[in-house]
Amino acid sequence: MAKLKGKAVIAQSGGPTAVINASACGVIQNCLKHPEVFTGVYGGLNGILGVLKEDLFDLSKEDPVEIDRLRRTPSAALGSCRHKLKSLDKDRTDYERILEVFKAHDIRYFFYIGGNDSMDTADKLARLAREIDYEMVAVGVPKTIDNDLAFTDHCPGYGSVAKFTATSVMEAGLDTAALYTHDTCTAMEIMGRNAGWIAASAGLARRKPQDAPHIILLPEVPFVLEKFVKDVKESLANYKQCFVAVGEGAKTADGKYLGEAGGAFAKDSFGHAQLGGAADTVRAIIEQHVGVKCRVNRAGTSQRVAMHWASKTDVDEAYMAGAAAVKAAMSGKSGMMVTLVRTKVGGKYKCTTGLVELEKVANGEKKVPAEFIDANGTGVTKAFKDYIAPLLQGAAKVDMSPDGLPIYARLAKKMVKKKTGKVYGESK
Amino acid sequence: MAKLKGKAVIAQSGGPTAVINASACGVIQNCLKHPEVFTGVYGGLNGILGVLKEDLFDLSKEDPVEIDRLRRTPSAALGSCRHKLKSLDKDRTDYERILEVFKAHDIRYFFYIGGNDSMDTADKLARLAREIDYEMVAVGVPKTIDNDLAFTDHCPGYGSVAKFTATSVMEAGLDTAALYTHDTCTAMEIMGRNAGWIAASAGLARRKPQDAPHIILLPEVPFVLEKFVKDVKESLANYKQCFVAVGEGAKTADGKYLGEAGGAFAKDSFGHAQLGGAADTVRAIIEQHVGVKCRVNRAGTSQRVAMHWASKTDVDEAYMAGAAAVKAAMSGKSGMMVTLVRTKVGGKYKCTTGLVELEKVANGEKKVPAEFIDANGTGVTKAFKDYIAPLLQGAAKVDMSPDGLPIYARLAKKMVKKKTGKVYGESK
Repeated sequence: MAKLKGKAVIAQSGGPTAVINASACGVIQNCLKHPEVFTGVYGGLNGILGVLKEDLFDLSKEDPVEIDRLRRTPSAALGSCRHKLKSLDKDRTDYERILEVFKAHDIRYFFYIGGNDSMDTADKLARLAREIDYEMVAVGVPKTIDNDLAFTDHCPGYGSVAKFTATSVMEAGLDTAALYTHDTCTAMEIMGRNAGWIAASAGLARRKPQDAPHIILLPEVPFVLEKFVKDVKESLANYKQCFVAVGEGAKTADGKYLGEAGGAFAKDSFGHAQLGGAADTVRAIIEQHVGVKCRVNRAGTSQRVAMHWASKTDVDEAYMAGAAAVKAAMSGKSGMMVTLVRTKVGGKYKCTTGLVELEKVANGEKKVPAEFIDANGTGVTKAFKDYIAPLLQGAAKVDMSPDGLPIYARLAKKMVKKKTGKVYGESK
Repeated sequence: MAKLKGKAVIAQSGGPTAVINASACGVIQNCLKHPEVFTGVYGGLNGILGVLKEDLFDLSKEDPVEIDRLRRTPSAALGSCRHKLKSLDKDRTDYERILEVFKAHDIRYFFYIGGNDSMDTADKLARLAREIDYEMVAVGVPKTIDNDLAFTDHCPGYGSVAKFTATSVMEAGLDTAALYTHDTCTAMEIMGRNAGWIAASAGLARRKPQDAPHIILLPEVPFVLEKFVKDVKESLANYKQCFVAVGEGAKTADGKYLGEAGGAFAKDSFGHAQLGGAADTVRAIIEQHVGVKCRVNRAGTSQRVAMHWASKTDVDEAYMAGAAAVKAAMSGKSGMMVTLVRTKVGGKYKCTTGLVELEKVANGEKKVPAEFIDANGTGVTKAFKDYIAPLLQGAAKVDMSPDGLPIYARLAKKMVKKKTGKVYGESK
């Protein structure tokens, strides 16, 4: 069978990670190896937005040194977006525009690196293309620090954010342990709006009972004020300190996020409801209901792009997923997402890749299972530690400059001449 | 001259750093090498509080592997405190209590690793000892991430926090650069209540004009709302994004910290004054006066104890300062603090140690000088980059565990039997 020939577009979507560029590097380098299939290799500027706006740039014109450095560069070097397309049966405009751009440039391969929504977009696109008989291949590459994609053992990006988070908790925990006579409690806010995978990773720092974090607040375990206050007091009684790892998605039984529900638990000195994040609410609760000082740490976006402390395993697997996507595409497997498959060889962790239908992934979501959460609901089990340990292994390489800081890739982004003659409206 | 023989007490004070334990290691290992002088080597639990309470532990009974690991362990392993002693002429009680404890245990050497206040305590103690003819030696070892101690070229702890901060800004800056269509601005809060040395270090991340941070807010430059809003708009016009490195000590011309002054600049949706840190105020200003979304990152204590990305130069110098303190003490030099002295050998940075009177240090404070701040007041100069670059060099070693995370030192802290027969009141 003659292989489908045409150009490839690679795009990144959603929140950046330490390794989404490693996946892009895997796709780009492997596409460039096959000019007999991929007649051009383009990047979509800021994800699907770049395709909609016909903002495409030529990756074959980048310095190969910079392309290779993507493997050691955090965030999303092609540009990312949070542009959610409407559902196909409600409004086909955007999907038709994408196919218009693809046709104009003879784009036959679409590699989308992202989470649930991106897989949904790629899936819809592949369906519509089939419907209108435009031959093309859409392959998804999983990416999310949240580790909540179904059908894959874990997600590229998770191992690195987990390694950084657990290390930060360990370090900040030692800070609290040193200064407990003054700063008795610390609340550290950890990303993960829907699932507690990253917050759970903080639990790795607790090798002994006295170690931080003494309490983890997971979205999977409903927050109950009285129970929490009791847990804090118990930690203070046992260890004279309390370090709380606060998942930003922690919520009450009736589904209110801690950040939003702040006012229900604690008022500021003027009687106003507290505003802020989940950790701010925890601080207010501790200061008012327990009566001791509480510090707040919230690394924010820094945690998800902490390439300087990334897991080598994670980086390698992210690259592998990108390479596997190209292989799948060249076999004509459209409408699929690459998965990471955990195996054991000689009792040792090994990771290979598999494929799953995009449609299944788009509608799945994976929470932290009960067997990974301890009986009190505030810690993790040995089963979880066994699951995650292999994902953190090894120090990812970073190129260093004489100024003492990392060198991260810079792409020239030479834009491709537009061909559709139409202008897409500004993004919302 | 016969050397003064007696026990040594080592204590740590104030905010932890990545390398205060490296200094302690330098003191401990070098004291243990000289049993002919140091008849015992004790740690003060939680700084001067431990001395006051007679909570001393025997460092010679620790596993030498753990003592050596202090060099690769963040925070303050001996325990720290924020207990400020009253001035000597107002209330001598605490100083007399300390000398009582020293006499009871034949403690003749006091090594205090800390900032301004600690140097003041050590100084007063040395004075009182002379006054009552108790022969003892007090030596200070500088420690502060804030880099604001006078008479030393720089402070152990600064290089590491600067390296981590600049790297975090670089990484989070790439995050903003990738997602600017959605998250246009980011305000990252950086420690330093009185001086902007750490906030300034963020400026290293900006190698090209489009790189973060586009604006640095330093305590040394008074904050003016209109000017700031103009600078943000200019950054948005030029780069479609704006990353603000917010020194927590940034303040208005009339001396109000940004965190406190929040309400003067922006109200929340209920018309209440914003509460929170300096970066929260910046976010509120950007959202209300510029009208775009702003994220807030605040690593908090994590930044000052980020051993996993510490500077090898900083760690080595911290150890060297500890070793130099022992050498000075053995030469009978009491009432002095070790300083770091910058020299050049063959055009290359070299660091040696010196000594300065504790009294001078206690009353000095070093701000970021004008020649290190750019004309607009929101960036740093080449002179600053030249000053700081050598301090960031090299990757500090960290012991790694099979679980993928660091191994930090654990001290057994075998307590010394109390001898004064008196109990010191609980700390405030």
